[in-house]
Amino acid sequence: MADDERVDLVDLVHNNDLTGIRLWLAEHPPYEIADELARMDSHLAIIPFRLLDKDRELEVFEELEPVHQQEILIGLRDGAFRELLEEMDPDDRARLIGEAPAKIATRALAGLSPAERKMTAALLGYPEESVGRYMTPETVVLHRDLTVGRALEVVRAKGADAETVYTLPVVDDGRRLAGTVQLSDLVVSAPETLIKDIVDVLVPRVRATEPAEGAARLMQEANLVALPVVDSEERFVGLLTFDDALELIEAADSEDIARQSGASPVAGHYVAASVLRLARARSVWLFLLIVASTLTVNVMQGFEATLEQVTALALFVPMLTGTGGNVGSQSATAIVRALAVGEVRVRDLPKVAWKECRVGFLLGIMLAAIALLIGSFLVGVQIAVAVATSVVAVCTWAAIIGSTMPLLARRVGVDPAVVSAPLVSTLVDATGLLIYFTVARAILGV
Amino acid sequence: MADDERVDLVDLVHNNDLTGIRLWLAEHPPYEIADELARMDSHLAIIPFRLLDKDRELEVFEELEPVHQQEILIGLRDGAFRELLEEMDPDDRARLIGEAPAKIATRALAGLSPAERKMTAALLGYPEESVGRYMTPETVVLHRDLTVGRALEVVRAKGADAETVYTLPVVDDGRRLAGTVQLSDLVVSAPETLIKDIVDVLVPRVRATEPAEGAARLMQEANLVALPVVDSEERFVGLLTFDDALELIEAADSEDIARQSGASPVAGHYVAASVLRLARARSVWLFLLIVASTLTVNVMQGFEATLEQVTALALFVPMLTGTGGNVGSQSATAIVRALAVGEVRVRDLPKVAWKECRVGFLLGIMLAAIALLIGSFLVGVQIAVAVATSVVAVCTWAAIIGSTMPLLARRVGVDPAVVSAPLVSTLVDATGLLIYFTVARAILGV
Repeated sequence: MADDERVDLVDLVHNNDLTGIRLWLAEHPPYEIADELARMDSHLAIIPFRLLDKDRELEVFEELEPVHQQEILIGLRDGAFRELLEEMDPDDRARLIGEAPAKIATRALAGLSPAERKMTAALLGYPEESVGRYMTPETVVLHRDLTVGRALEVVRAKGADAETVYTLPVVDDGRRLAGTVQLSDLVVSAPETLIKDIVDVLVPRVRATEPAEGAARLMQEANLVALPVVDSEERFVGLLTFDDALELIEAADSEDIARQSGASPVAGHYVAASVLRLARARSVWLFLLIVASTLTVNVMQGFEATLEQVTALALFVPMLTGTGGNVGSQSATAIVRALAVGEVRVRDLPKVAWKECRVGFLLGIMLAAIALLIGSFLVGVQIAVAVATSVVAVCTWAAIIGSTMPLLARRVGVDPAVVSAPLVSTLVDATGLLIYFTVARAILGV
Repeated sequence: MADDERVDLVDLVHNNDLTGIRLWLAEHPPYEIADELARMDSHLAIIPFRLLDKDRELEVFEELEPVHQQEILIGLRDGAFRELLEEMDPDDRARLIGEAPAKIATRALAGLSPAERKMTAALLGYPEESVGRYMTPETVVLHRDLTVGRALEVVRAKGADAETVYTLPVVDDGRRLAGTVQLSDLVVSAPETLIKDIVDVLVPRVRATEPAEGAARLMQEANLVALPVVDSEERFVGLLTFDDALELIEAADSEDIARQSGASPVAGHYVAASVLRLARARSVWLFLLIVASTLTVNVMQGFEATLEQVTALALFVPMLTGTGGNVGSQSATAIVRALAVGEVRVRDLPKVAWKECRVGFLLGIMLAAIALLIGSFLVGVQIAVAVATSVVAVCTWAAIIGSTMPLLARRVGVDPAVVSAPLVSTLVDATGLLIYFTVARAILGV
């Protein structure tokens, strides 16, 4: 969107052009301002942030990710610091404090009013990445015995303090969740209608301790603007709203995508991430994988005599390991995604393995035909037949490994996305070479 | 969620247990029913679908993806077919008809009432994957000169037919979009307030012809429940709602993830996809990549004499190409994602290339140390030094290639996600081998 803009905020900041910065800020919506701040170094980002109007300051701040919020907070004086935190939505504040270093967290909690501090502490009591950390406790709750007319008065009176009034939780005497009504239903219903007659009791609900990502995907499947959250005794405690759900889904997808390439997810903006942080996020798996690839060296060593006799066999090693890796990565990627969006379940394992086995075999036949052609042309039919035979076996094997490993990971409680393309490739490499040299020895008789 | 359920709908269908099916359907919400139907073969899915109540039939149908909707439609008699289509949301219907084979599309359009047909034809006039295909034209439009009290009466009168009433478009005399008001604002404002005094004029808007994915990501960034859509003359034509945005984002992410593994996205449920369809989706890139990998055979052939002299050099080929591929894939994946969520822009190319160059170098140094250790232990220091030196060069090179290619793809108007992990691996393989053998020859003096 912003690719055709003339002036960059970062240039204005570099030139210390305060008038220019003020003008830029006035012309852009909060989410675009937040986006630009996230791209800057923190000592620069604080400059335009301080120039924002009081009420826009909060809007921009809430659009930032916690890691960037922390950087801004460090640059603020006590008064501004306290004011900003006091005004934040309780769920956003809890997440910020939960992720911040102890020093900032203590300073933040100390500055809050007793009511806000209590609310924040309650949210912080829920496990990280649970629904409790993302839900808003600031809602308008309706009793099931109210009339629609009275309910609308309640919304009018308390609606301004709530994060959302589109989905209204309905409770019974024990604050147990009966269901929800939509504000639109209230608006179109006759005032004397009873809430209990229009409440949607079949609406899905989640526990505050459940994983937040699952709840967000449920909202997506069920098309909900807000999802009611209950405690272990079915009492209403908060609402998960669609904007948090959207954020959770984007974050989960980014995380899965990073994991799939064998990297840990990096919080915050790519542009603002340091070289060291990026390298660290990618190094763990690379380290493990290069160690694992010692296995390929061992296999090759086991066939060194064969290689010395027929050097031409070595020529096809990169093609073979590459192809096996590609097929395995495709299967792994497809299954990890299908698991993430709920299309495949752990108990589908036999069905999935059998399907991928056939897919791998089919692809193997096709690719073997090409390998046979290329090989015959470059080094002769005999070696080409060995290569082609191996391609079929390796593709089938790679598809089975790539598809079953994510399901096995989920079964033992590990994020299936750790079954990354590089991991599958590396595992398939060693076994693929074993197949290749065994087949070649048999065909060539060496 | 459903992993611990006792009875599967598909088992009930297989056993032709009609009572059991009816009970199952009554106990599950529409989105779960749709999920189960999507997992079945179409000739089976039609059985429980026919057993649904009239009003739930539509809810379940709207939760299905177009590809599964088509399968259901084919199994319906004319009356049921027509009724279902007539009741659908116009945007869902337009998408279904737009994607269906001509035979179904004609039968569908012919059965519609004139009003619904007109609306559908209008939506079908927008390009595929544009906002126009996903927006709903059924909205409650407010004139800016209304009072809040009168506006609420309009919502009450027309709200039942609209897909959403939470975001209400506000227009001037020429139906040009002035902005939006939220239903919650109407509810909490005094009845005599004028709409033009509370309208949010800064709300983002998009053209109906713009790409739908970009609009969905804008809604996510700006936290909107609904985004107003205008024509080329700024006249209001519809609203893009958050449920469509969620769907668009999930679909776009699935597509990117599939592309990143070198596969075309497969529409519909994984479980329902046939072996042939899955193989076809993955075959194109595999075919291109195995042909491209002929390059590695050529490079190896160029150094066949060296290989014959020092066979041990061949042992490290899989480790080297594997490591280069891993580093390159990580860079490509990171940049494709950063582009998708808008964290990186095309003009950041030099900055990104320089950053990734340093990341690749740093990772290369670390991995080279390990390669040196393993190599010295297995085959002696000289070859190990050659391997280690090549690892540094290959990692740096792979990171640069992996990060710049997606940006170059976007620059020339190609989806950056086609720069898949397998593509980067294959490209890096050939150059990596060239580096390796050149370095080895220099160090070993052969």
